[in-house]
Amino acid sequence: MDAIDTRLPHLVVIGGGFAGLWATRALAKAPLRITLLDRSNHHLFQPLLYQVATAGLSAPDIAAPLRHILRRQCNVQVRLGEATGIDPAARRVALADGGALGFDYLLLASGATHAYFGNDQWAAHAPGLKSLDDALHLRRQLLLAFERAEACDDPAERAAWLSFAVVGGGPTGVELAGTLAEIARHTLKDEFRRIDPASARVRLVEAGPRVLASFPEELSRKARRQLERLGVEVSTGVPVTAIDGGGYRLGEDYVHARTVVWAAGVAASPLARALGVPLDRAGRVIVEPDLSVPGHPHVFVAGDLAAVQRADGRPVPGVAPAAKQMGRHVAASLRARLRGVQAGAFGYRDFGNLATIGRMAAVVDLHGFKLSGLLAWWFWLAAHVFFLIGFRNRLVVLLNWAWAYWSYQRAARIILGRDREGPVPPA
Amino acid sequence: MDAIDTRLPHLVVIGGGFAGLWATRALAKAPLRITLLDRSNHHLFQPLLYQVATAGLSAPDIAAPLRHILRRQCNVQVRLGEATGIDPAARRVALADGGALGFDYLLLASGATHAYFGNDQWAAHAPGLKSLDDALHLRRQLLLAFERAEACDDPAERAAWLSFAVVGGGPTGVELAGTLAEIARHTLKDEFRRIDPASARVRLVEAGPRVLASFPEELSRKARRQLERLGVEVSTGVPVTAIDGGGYRLGEDYVHARTVVWAAGVAASPLARALGVPLDRAGRVIVEPDLSVPGHPHVFVAGDLAAVQRADGRPVPGVAPAAKQMGRHVAASLRARLRGVQAGAFGYRDFGNLATIGRMAAVVDLHGFKLSGLLAWWFWLAAHVFFLIGFRNRLVVLLNWAWAYWSYQRAARIILGRDREGPVPPA
Repeated sequence: MDAIDTRLPHLVVIGGGFAGLWATRALAKAPLRITLLDRSNHHLFQPLLYQVATAGLSAPDIAAPLRHILRRQCNVQVRLGEATGIDPAARRVALADGGALGFDYLLLASGATHAYFGNDQWAAHAPGLKSLDDALHLRRQLLLAFERAEACDDPAERAAWLSFAVVGGGPTGVELAGTLAEIARHTLKDEFRRIDPASARVRLVEAGPRVLASFPEELSRKARRQLERLGVEVSTGVPVTAIDGGGYRLGEDYVHARTVVWAAGVAASPLARALGVPLDRAGRVIVEPDLSVPGHPHVFVAGDLAAVQRADGRPVPGVAPAAKQMGRHVAASLRARLRGVQAGAFGYRDFGNLATIGRMAAVVDLHGFKLSGLLAWWFWLAAHVFFLIGFRNRLVVLLNWAWAYWSYQRAARIILGRDREGPVPPA
Repeated sequence: MDAIDTRLPHLVVIGGGFAGLWATRALAKAPLRITLLDRSNHHLFQPLLYQVATAGLSAPDIAAPLRHILRRQCNVQVRLGEATGIDPAARRVALADGGALGFDYLLLASGATHAYFGNDQWAAHAPGLKSLDDALHLRRQLLLAFERAEACDDPAERAAWLSFAVVGGGPTGVELAGTLAEIARHTLKDEFRRIDPASARVRLVEAGPRVLASFPEELSRKARRQLERLGVEVSTGVPVTAIDGGGYRLGEDYVHARTVVWAAGVAASPLARALGVPLDRAGRVIVEPDLSVPGHPHVFVAGDLAAVQRADGRPVPGVAPAAKQMGRHVAASLRARLRGVQAGAFGYRDFGNLATIGRMAAVVDLHGFKLSGLLAWWFWLAAHVFFLIGFRNRLVVLLNWAWAYWSYQRAARIILGRDREGPVPPA
């Protein structure tokens, strides 16, 4: 316990993701008292969330308690709670529990959620992947699908349980589809008596012309080939037009599939609207060059919620390195402001782009230097383990991966959750 | 995929715990086809469940998929599902999904659940610990209590959030109380700004005269002293007479406490009643010497659900080694039966009794050879890691423990679950 000097200006940071946490840490020595507000008690290493969803890692492997990370930073108070509204003029954040937080400065870094492009009824049938709870829900659904297929006597129904679709050909969709194919073809081998898991249909559906559209065309082609080699059916150029509990419609065709995963779109956190300032089409806040909000210089936005352009006019992508850089820039802007100096403009430093596809398959694009296949996969692995927060987590994750690599097994194949979401079909 | 010879006699095993799984494995070469039915997809190493509840281990660290354990045993089919009824004469098990399983032989090994001794309304306020879902629920509740205390402005309410009671002084209650005290005094140190977690009151409440009643009196005394040294308040000889959301009544006194954990009683699985045979007071099936059910020689009961006496008249305890031995004995009885031979009587081989208390504290009783303190703790640790199923889990658990030991940290301090069970009190 360490009381905080209440005479200092108060910065409220909403969101303990990469942007919020990196800003907070960069302000360790600033003459500010900081309240970090998050709905979860942990910082999440989102780039590995798909590994929790596909039973490769445990939830705690990729998360660390915010309190623990910040325990030695005496000017920070971590607060578990949810912001429901922001009044930038009155400098108040309304909380879900009925309380409120006054602030002198605000950093809004509440990130993004799934977007179903106006088809919110799809959410019930095609869950997305943003939080640890989402990942555990998805894991449960993926593992239960094979259990239900095994218990099922009707061949058509069984085939529907063994039919999986991942909607969205971005990095998350590619990772999920590749890993799902590996599970069906390798992990579950020999474990069922009535079904052959390797006969499962794993389909990756992308409405645009190619997967991994943010990569050079050559790498998109290679990624597609690597996916197909892993056993994923890749469909591009045709949009999904309907999703219900029994399957999905692709263009004109209805495909029976009991498991549809949504990896197609993200929308900015609804808190952005509370600011009452112009948003872009995805609901992100169009910020000033120093990442403050137009008309509210004491309010900043960073991470996936901020719409920022690069020097060449392309948008800054919604990836972890960009969020960290923005967080650090907000910290620098604030420090400048407290010294009475004008803050500089944010410049995104692009280190490159990498995506994993599955066992020994990935693509890496480092400013024209392109890698794919096994070498890219090692590069991806090293980068992700290196950036994972916490020494212990790195060790556990490495151990899990080494084990998974040699044994084709996955460490976290445990179905959790009380409610079984409807009865198992009679056998 | 490996079809099973359907002409063989069919054994249905209900429950993939120690009794059911050990029986199944011991029948690998028997001329039987086996269906192992469980509500979960995993075998659970129950002796370490309290570590998941107290955030020391992840759920998958102490569980392994039943299918994976049994993948090479070709005469077994694993089935995810719940038995709701048994007709021993018609030789049918009714399933929750509306289906049924016919059998030639049945092994009922569905274990035990919490018992509130006729006070089922306590269940909502004092959760117990039997499954991984229970453990994650409890972890969430323990970690949230500190969060709520931090967010709370009313001193009385804050004290109630920092007041914990564990009801029941058996091994589980002792483990939970000891670990909870360690979390409050060490793990959460320096992480809060408004509360001092070390000021939390952790109380262990036992209605009987001493904790660890199944141990010699000398070890009970030592266990109590070790608990008190860890900061646990131990109360014996007075029963809890009421539990509600705000606290509990101990004899005449009402104690404000927002977190009460139930470790006081277990009752046999309700499936025992479906057999229509005499049960003991705890609802367990009074079995024949070969562990079959009186009047139904083709039905066996093993594990926590079986009421069996030792040669000296004392009951066989509800511990993992006893369940494994019973499982193996049922397998031997069945093999004898299939050869037309009379099966022998079950004899319990008692290897001793051990219980952990907390950091570097445990008690061990090996037939009069008694240990306590650090040495007992090392013994306990070695025994538990040794018996943990699966090579990889052992490594991960050891790594977690080594880390926890040196850092006083706990690897799984992650609050999971969507619903927040009521609002966080306003700050």
